[in-house]
Amino acid sequence: MLYARKDKVKVGVLGATSYTGAELVRLLSFHPGASIRYVSSQSYEGKTLSSVFPALAGICDDVLLSPREAVATDAECVFSCLPHAASAELLLPVIERGIKVIDLSADFRLRDANVYKEWYCDESHPGHPAPQLLEKAVYGLCEHYREHIAGASIIANPGCYVTSVLLPLLPLYKGGVKIDWAIADSKSGVSGAGRGLKQNTHFPEANENFSAYSIGHRHRHTPEMEQELSVAAGRPVTLTFSPHLLPVNRGILSTIYLKTESTAAECAETVKKFYSGEAFVRVRGASDLPQISSVVHTNYCDIAFTGGGAGQPVIAVSALDNLVKGASGQALQNMNIMFGLPETAGLLR
Amino acid sequence: MLYARKDKVKVGVLGATSYTGAELVRLLSFHPGASIRYVSSQSYEGKTLSSVFPALAGICDDVLLSPREAVATDAECVFSCLPHAASAELLLPVIERGIKVIDLSADFRLRDANVYKEWYCDESHPGHPAPQLLEKAVYGLCEHYREHIAGASIIANPGCYVTSVLLPLLPLYKGGVKIDWAIADSKSGVSGAGRGLKQNTHFPEANENFSAYSIGHRHRHTPEMEQELSVAAGRPVTLTFSPHLLPVNRGILSTIYLKTESTAAECAETVKKFYSGEAFVRVRGASDLPQISSVVHTNYCDIAFTGGGAGQPVIAVSALDNLVKGASGQALQNMNIMFGLPETAGLLR
Amino acid sequence: MLYARKDKVKVGVLGATSYTGAELVRLLSFHPGASIRYVSSQSYEGKTLSSVFPALAGICDDVLLSPREAVATDAECVFSCLPHAASAELLLPVIERGIKVIDLSADFRLRDANVYKEWYCDESHPGHPAPQLLEKAVYGLCEHYREHIAGASIIANPGCYVTSVLLPLLPLYKGGVKIDWAIADSKSGVSGAGRGLKQNTHFPEANENFSAYSIGHRHRHTPEMEQELSVAAGRPVTLTFSPHLLPVNRGILSTIYLKTESTAAECAETVKKFYSGEAFVRVRGASDLPQISSVVHTNYCDIAFTGGGAGQPVIAVSALDNLVKGASGQALQNMNIMFGLPETAGLLR
Amino acid sequence: MLYARKDKVKVGVLGATSYTGAELVRLLSFHPGASIRYVSSQSYEGKTLSSVFPALAGICDDVLLSPREAVATDAECVFSCLPHAASAELLLPVIERGIKVIDLSADFRLRDANVYKEWYCDESHPGHPAPQLLEKAVYGLCEHYREHIAGASIIANPGCYVTSVLLPLLPLYKGGVKIDWAIADSKSGVSGAGRGLKQNTHFPEANENFSAYSIGHRHRHTPEMEQELSVAAGRPVTLTFSPHLLPVNRGILSTIYLKTESTAAECAETVKKFYSGEAFVRVRGASDLPQISSVVHTNYCDIAFTGGGAGQPVIAVSALDNLVKGASGQALQNMNIMFGLPETAGLLR
Repeated sequence: MLYARKDKVKVGVLGATSYTGAELVRLLSFHPGASIRYVSSQSYEGKTLSSVFPALAGICDDVLLSPREAVATDAECVFSCLPHAASAELLLPVIERGIKVIDLSADFRLRDANVYKEWYCDESHPGHPAPQLLEKAVYGLCEHYREHIAGASIIANPGCYVTSVLLPLLPLYKGGVKIDWAIADSKSGVSGAGRGLKQNTHFPEANENFSAYSIGHRHRHTPEMEQELSVAAGRPVTLTFSPHLLPVNRGILSTIYLKTESTAAECAETVKKFYSGEAFVRVRGASDLPQISSVVHTNYCDIAFTGGGAGQPVIAVSALDNLVKGASGQALQNMNIMFGLPETAGLLR
Repeated sequence: MLYARKDKVKVGVLGATSYTGAELVRLLSFHPGASIRYVSSQSYEGKTLSSVFPALAGICDDVLLSPREAVATDAECVFSCLPHAASAELLLPVIERGIKVIDLSADFRLRDANVYKEWYCDESHPGHPAPQLLEKAVYGLCEHYREHIAGASIIANPGCYVTSVLLPLLPLYKGGVKIDWAIADSKSGVSGAGRGLKQNTHFPEANENFSAYSIGHRHRHTPEMEQELSVAAGRPVTLTFSPHLLPVNRGILSTIYLKTESTAAECAETVKKFYSGEAFVRVRGASDLPQISSVVHTNYCDIAFTGGGAGQPVIAVSALDNLVKGASGQALQNMNIMFGLPETAGLLR
Repeated sequence: MLYARKDKVKVGVLGATSYTGAELVRLLSFHPGASIRYVSSQSYEGKTLSSVFPALAGICDDVLLSPREAVATDAECVFSCLPHAASAELLLPVIERGIKVIDLSADFRLRDANVYKEWYCDESHPGHPAPQLLEKAVYGLCEHYREHIAGASIIANPGCYVTSVLLPLLPLYKGGVKIDWAIADSKSGVSGAGRGLKQNTHFPEANENFSAYSIGHRHRHTPEMEQELSVAAGRPVTLTFSPHLLPVNRGILSTIYLKTESTAAECAETVKKFYSGEAFVRVRGASDLPQISSVVHTNYCDIAFTGGGAGQPVIAVSALDNLVKGASGQALQNMNIMFGLPETAGLLR
Repeated sequence: MLYARKDKVKVGVLGATSYTGAELVRLLSFHPGASIRYVSSQSYEGKTLSSVFPALAGICDDVLLSPREAVATDAECVFSCLPHAASAELLLPVIERGIKVIDLSADFRLRDANVYKEWYCDESHPGHPAPQLLEKAVYGLCEHYREHIAGASIIANPGCYVTSVLLPLLPLYKGGVKIDWAIADSKSGVSGAGRGLKQNTHFPEANENFSAYSIGHRHRHTPEMEQELSVAAGRPVTLTFSPHLLPVNRGILSTIYLKTESTAAECAETVKKFYSGEAFVRVRGASDLPQISSVVHTNYCDIAFTGGGAGQPVIAVSALDNLVKGASGQALQNMNIMFGLPETAGLLR
């Protein structure tokens, strides 16, 4: 591999004891072009990361700083796996020091501070913590914003559900395929709900169970999807999005119904063309549909099209690992692009 | 409980070593008004049922007859858990002897022998084995055909996916709710695929996985759904049906998108009214959506409605246990109706 | 069924929102000889039980009282699914009113208040809440204390792990089989850890995982096992007990190594003889070992013996459902015995 | 990394469509010092490997040769993931051509052809296919035979259960710790049973289940364990070994009871010392016991000791991924040693 730079990128990870944080640290630890300078955690400050995640013993035994302490430390690239609001707030001084940031929270994903306010604010944080920066933020969907990412200082790393819906649909909207309506029926593994304890993710309640949640009224991730689809289409696009909780650790599968005059084969062709040359998108055949087991622990997003004809909707199926292409893998891919490293560095395994 | 008859119903079970067969035998064993006369199996003839299903030790230790031998044995009511074609063929002499049959296969579900031929026939059985009986068969969806079931001699026990789609939708179509299109995105536990060994149901391939199958082109169960929806609507109704394989043992959850001018509340009201007084259908609130864990090992079908408004589809969610309300429980409910027993007998647990 | 009494037993359940509580309420709801008078919960007071456990909709929609309020209410038999210490404390006034109690906590299991203190006390409750009652309490292992249970006013319902170890071993110790040492390597489903949220029972951490816990030093349940084995042997017996967390909802399987000169066949024979006529213990053959799937959702304990010879230990394998025979089923079995009902009433399904 | 050789090692994989084969191909595909020349499969000859394992799309799309055809092809190092007997037979001509082989089957693990015959032969293959080669074969437990491996031409890659038992115990026996008896209670994920379809590994029967198998009488893997323990101890050592089937895809956890006068701390110290400097063995503290989730998808074996004192056995707990350190990862580690590559090459992820 030829690298644009010789020395390793010095990185810091805020919120390293979240699932996305731990996955990111694992990936960074084996990345040939990155060097971890610090990891932070509010809840486990002072402990080692490997005492929280025993799987990381011998891989990352670093002591966890507090996020506030961490941001003052030396690093060229800071990843934030903090919750929204806390994330932007803590990243502010980092950004001011000219350090590049990749934010895995929702804070910089929505271009309109009012839309952000509607979905992410409450009494304790009534408005966006840094609306002036929204314009500088680049939406980090690598296959669609690669050029902007290369020069960006703030990356808004896309949501996991969102990535699974946008990757199959954006090329269609960009390519002018006429779509009357779209319904995304998405199913996510439980790690997508995070490491915080909740009754519905308690093992005996999530295991051998399956349920829909937040359906019927708009989910926080819907405006993020609609924003990007609208940009691609050049007109306002709406979407029905139904998330479900799947009793597996990792993985999202989205079954997406599209009302269109185009055939499934035409959709597949358009999408395949768009992603030709892409390392991490695999467009599969209609008889070889994506499934979660094909993508877990990888940075791939698998896509296929079927259905259509006789008034039936075309159906797109996509699958990815919510912690990799849906979060930390894509974050690393963004870092690779920003720092001139090979885009697949540290992501093939 | 007051029973219309004093002596127990003498029953036989063909194909007792399928999952539906074993579940049926378990239910029958504890049914206060039924007495098992024989159980049959082609593959395990001569063994005891409890040697095949160790869970049944002490519950049903009967020796398995061959299906051919079994049908000649004394019983008033014969349940068939055999595969289609084999089922109708073996039931023929039983029916001729005036014995009531409840067929859990697809053989008597489709009223039109040509439609049956399209979906279930091949070279080895080129046509329906007993088309002359189709007219006598009653579709055993208890809440919708109770009166016919009471006097029937042949019951076509509905499919599991089908039951999960028909129960929420039939009252709407019957009630004149205008529905432009309907998409059923259904997810089933692996027991729905049967006890036969296949690569995709091998534990390491089904576990931690999730996949769509037979989507995009019509599935065998679609014509069964459309037949009943059309009867209810009084006009031809089509449907998009997408089955998925869920890594749980039991349970189906269907997320059904309906294009309608009616609101979710109106739909819920219509359906709730229709099922008022029903023991096994629970219409839940929009904030209390059905989930698989609420219904497994029971004969309940849970239903709720949400969504709609602002051009969005109304969303019906239904959940049931594919082996109970989706198969053997409903079969028992049919027997209860046919023999004048309390409809819930042997089904509350 | 002929019942010794005509009217139903009026029962109350304290701590109904624990897993054992909910299982008990489900069982009681379908018990032909019991009538639930109240259910209680500290955390969910004022809500309905079915709003906490949606599966109970239509089965038990009772409003939850506070435990303190509940105990003053009319009932002949009170089950407590409360945590230890809280349980004995709240049961005290109930016992004083002459009401029969079945305590599923550990409070009355250990006959020696000092041993109890060693394992269950801390600063907040420095000693046993009612040591004077220990003598009156009967250890509710039905197959071994049936006569005492029949006349008891306080039942100490055995622990789940403990039941899985005692049922195979007690007949051996009682029968004079010489056992030099015994090691119980036990594996329990996650519901055994209760409904309270903990990191190690969070779905993504328990799923696809397996771990030992509290091994190497004595576990709380060891003294309970040793107490009963010592009574049976007529001499002090010690045991090595190693619990493990199994990624299933329900079920315990114990693999128990016994250093003995007896053969596996002799052990099996002794145990089979002891339990002949028992409804809920199935002694299986060495080629038909117990497994969790054979016993879940039932009140059975399956037992088999293998190994031995050539200096090798004899191996007992036992399996039961931790929430049924290991808790609520056995509690109901105790109630049946205490109130002269058929011992299997409400327990066959 | 500095490599002893500049060009990549040319490798072939026989039996690539087994689980170990597919894992090996994935690892080799990302190995910086290996180049896959061919992959073979009897059942899928002519298909691509990625059509059998969709997860390998874009990673290894090679066409599968027949094993017989494959062995004639150019490669410096041949891995065999074939079943025993077939493996040695097909490897014979390869070995004769001076090509290095790493055999993941049991064919070269037992040094005594008679012991092999006892455990692995039947009428169709009545004796070892190549007894003359047994002497040349080196047992590929890297941490214990590194020097021999470096110069070997035939590697007998250890069994997965065996590795989980030998890694914690060998240093004790080598170090002269006096052990009266040892019992290994081992639990393995279902991939350990292979990709072939069997009823007990059918999803609905393995899921939510747990069972012992082949216990009580000696398992095929016991002589392999005893052989190596005896070599280490310098005297005949016997062992009780009890395998169990765990409802997870990957991972083995062994709980090993040791009758010894030494303390757990002393055992831990001895073992820690032995493995100091080893990349893939992590000796953990007694309060930080190994668990399966810490090692899956890695080449680590985690080990800890607890218990002992007061006549109680010392307990060793070990965990590894049966497909990685228990099979393909260790095979790759062996290749690294044989070809002078860094021992961790391709194994850190």
